[in-house]
Amino acid sequence: MAELKIELIAIGDEILLGHTLDTNSHWIARRLVENGFRLRWQSVVGDNESDLHHQLKRAWKRADVLILTGGLGPTHDDITRPVAARFFEDELVDRSDLREGIRERFTLRGLEPPAGYEQLAQFPTGAEPIPNQHGSAPGIHYSRDGRELFSLPGVPIEMRGMVDGYLLHHLEVWREGVFSCRILKTTGVGESHLSELIGDPGALEPVRLAFLPSIDHGVTLRLSHVGDDPDAVSEVLGLAERYVRDKVGKYIYADEERSLEATILDELRRRDWKLALAESCTGGMASSRLVSIPGSSDVFERGFVTYSNRAKTELLAVDEALLNRYGAVSAEVAQAMAEGAHLRADVDIAVSITGIAGPSGGTQDKPVGLTYIGLADRDGTDVRRFRFSGDRDTNRRRSAQAALNLLWQRLSE
Amino acid sequence: MAELKIELIAIGDEILLGHTLDTNSHWIARRLVENGFRLRWQSVVGDNESDLHHQLKRAWKRADVLILTGGLGPTHDDITRPVAARFFEDELVDRSDLREGIRERFTLRGLEPPAGYEQLAQFPTGAEPIPNQHGSAPGIHYSRDGRELFSLPGVPIEMRGMVDGYLLHHLEVWREGVFSCRILKTTGVGESHLSELIGDPGALEPVRLAFLPSIDHGVTLRLSHVGDDPDAVSEVLGLAERYVRDKVGKYIYADEERSLEATILDELRRRDWKLALAESCTGGMASSRLVSIPGSSDVFERGFVTYSNRAKTELLAVDEALLNRYGAVSAEVAQAMAEGAHLRADVDIAVSITGIAGPSGGTQDKPVGLTYIGLADRDGTDVRRFRFSGDRDTNRRRSAQAALNLLWQRLSE
Repeated sequence: MAELKIELIAIGDEILLGHTLDTNSHWIARRLVENGFRLRWQSVVGDNESDLHHQLKRAWKRADVLILTGGLGPTHDDITRPVAARFFEDELVDRSDLREGIRERFTLRGLEPPAGYEQLAQFPTGAEPIPNQHGSAPGIHYSRDGRELFSLPGVPIEMRGMVDGYLLHHLEVWREGVFSCRILKTTGVGESHLSELIGDPGALEPVRLAFLPSIDHGVTLRLSHVGDDPDAVSEVLGLAERYVRDKVGKYIYADEERSLEATILDELRRRDWKLALAESCTGGMASSRLVSIPGSSDVFERGFVTYSNRAKTELLAVDEALLNRYGAVSAEVAQAMAEGAHLRADVDIAVSITGIAGPSGGTQDKPVGLTYIGLADRDGTDVRRFRFSGDRDTNRRRSAQAALNLLWQRLSE
Repeated sequence: MAELKIELIAIGDEILLGHTLDTNSHWIARRLVENGFRLRWQSVVGDNESDLHHQLKRAWKRADVLILTGGLGPTHDDITRPVAARFFEDELVDRSDLREGIRERFTLRGLEPPAGYEQLAQFPTGAEPIPNQHGSAPGIHYSRDGRELFSLPGVPIEMRGMVDGYLLHHLEVWREGVFSCRILKTTGVGESHLSELIGDPGALEPVRLAFLPSIDHGVTLRLSHVGDDPDAVSEVLGLAERYVRDKVGKYIYADEERSLEATILDELRRRDWKLALAESCTGGMASSRLVSIPGSSDVFERGFVTYSNRAKTELLAVDEALLNRYGAVSAEVAQAMAEGAHLRADVDIAVSITGIAGPSGGTQDKPVGLTYIGLADRDGTDVRRFRFSGDRDTNRRRSAQAALNLLWQRLSE
């Protein structure tokens, strides 16, 4: 079975000049892998018509599927539309249907479309527009000589919508076998430790095992297999899944693309419990993650962002003597914060986070990365100590993740 | 004046599979710009000898300077050393000086060198080793036919040490011109509207203008220019900057790579003011953005994540009658939340956010995306109404950005 050769070109001076970190290419790479494809080549070119033309020429020779991101907007440095049209010896014409669609997006919101929006309706005659659920510029899809080109916007949400809503569906017809995968989402355990616990991945053959780690959302395990018969593929994957669950089952919180936040909220709902959070170094990050889930309002009661000692005392009734004796980053204060939130918010369970995110504020005794998480419910209070080793951002994200992980562990007991 | 053509190739399956975000390329791109150079092309290839060979061949034709990162380690999938040697029809020989150097690194720390370390001393005869201050594998520097190739490790700290300690010094002799750019960061205005206000970018020539939009951090403007004389380049850029400031100056909050959060915290510090936030739909996101900046603790006093009506009443003293009459998403409640936070936290300024992030919860009168931001200080309270049109995540991010934008506007009055 020949593997599909997929090439990705990101377009934009902002990447080459180091102003923008190219997270789009990373996201597309992951999404392809999650769907059983993979990128073979990846490149970046600037907002330079000749460079883009040459890159297209080369990619079109070697790849089956070519994905472009960026350069589809209405300003003068958005060159993808004209360059793609010229490459295919095609021409741009005014598409009144697209123009009206864009105008409607604005008028529905009581707004005038911005100057130059007509530019976006200048569309190549030989291509299909890709619908844009989150913005104005349509994507461009060319099918030529048994190859496909998908030109997507650089704005992440618009690009993502087109990948999930269009591109992945079109890639499906290219598939020559049944590809299937199982997702096992873990939390509270690192990639190396998981790998050690699972042991030689050869034991899972013919199933492929991949580790997809992230800083703040745990490690996702992906088992994948390709074959001719759907039932056989499913059976083989089922065996592999049982093998993995046997080894690391206690860290798995979901067996689908489901977030830890949603899992926690569902469990709270099932118990008819209310939750409150008290955050110091994370500054609202853990609350914000929970509120990111629609419908969180029925179980997430409130959050306290008690960054100052005064806020800890006033809002959470943390004893000043405790703060003076042990410091704000201590097991004692984490406990008092969780208990204060539990009591003051009058909820069933409360979680507290206090830590030294860095880069400054660390000492010999209390180094940067030291974090305490407290968890209070009617049965009492637990406090856990962590020592993270990243920069400020990483430490804060890991702290929020650790808090949600402990909460999930408690709820799944 | 010929500008140096620099190409970068990152090597590693982990990037193409979406496991690793390629921050190395981003860092190198920035570092080059900071030193007056810029990347012309950038690409990624996997741990595949033939793909790397082809990429080298192409790059060597078009670039003056070729930078490789990754694939220099001792394992079987580290292919850069043999592929580079083959490309230059060179051979690898055992360099006892390098071997001893590596061994010494370990023995000095009382450690045995790891198995396979001798591999790292297999070095191409026609190349110069690049010293590695932070690890074992030396980099590889080829000078051929008036072109340069620098092959660096993929481990960020080792790569960075070689760029700063070696590569940039070698590029200096190549300098034939000065590339420089100015960054103007805006908030509270969209890309199209900015573009309209600035007008024809041709008026700025020879300076190039680029728009770098993001969902939740405003639009960054970049002015750039290349020339022979640093003073002349600076003067031309200065003229362009004044032109742009004339048109859109009121939206510009920083003229360097500086965040809105940091700008706000500095202004609060200058005034010796304390800040509190009261967030509903954003659920702590705005607080978390401020706390992401080191040292925020001296001005950010606390945040209230008052997602439920009960929390609004208990923590912010929002009148229940108000909630019943106007609903939680209303100008009246936004005002009461801001005033409650101002009073209860006893701070100088307080900002509130209440909105319908979606996807559900919208009505004819109060559609998804409707958001009110309140701002209370000793002079009174302002409330602003917004209507966003994204998904839940986008609406929440735009709400947090709108709140920080209003806060900045108030502080910069």
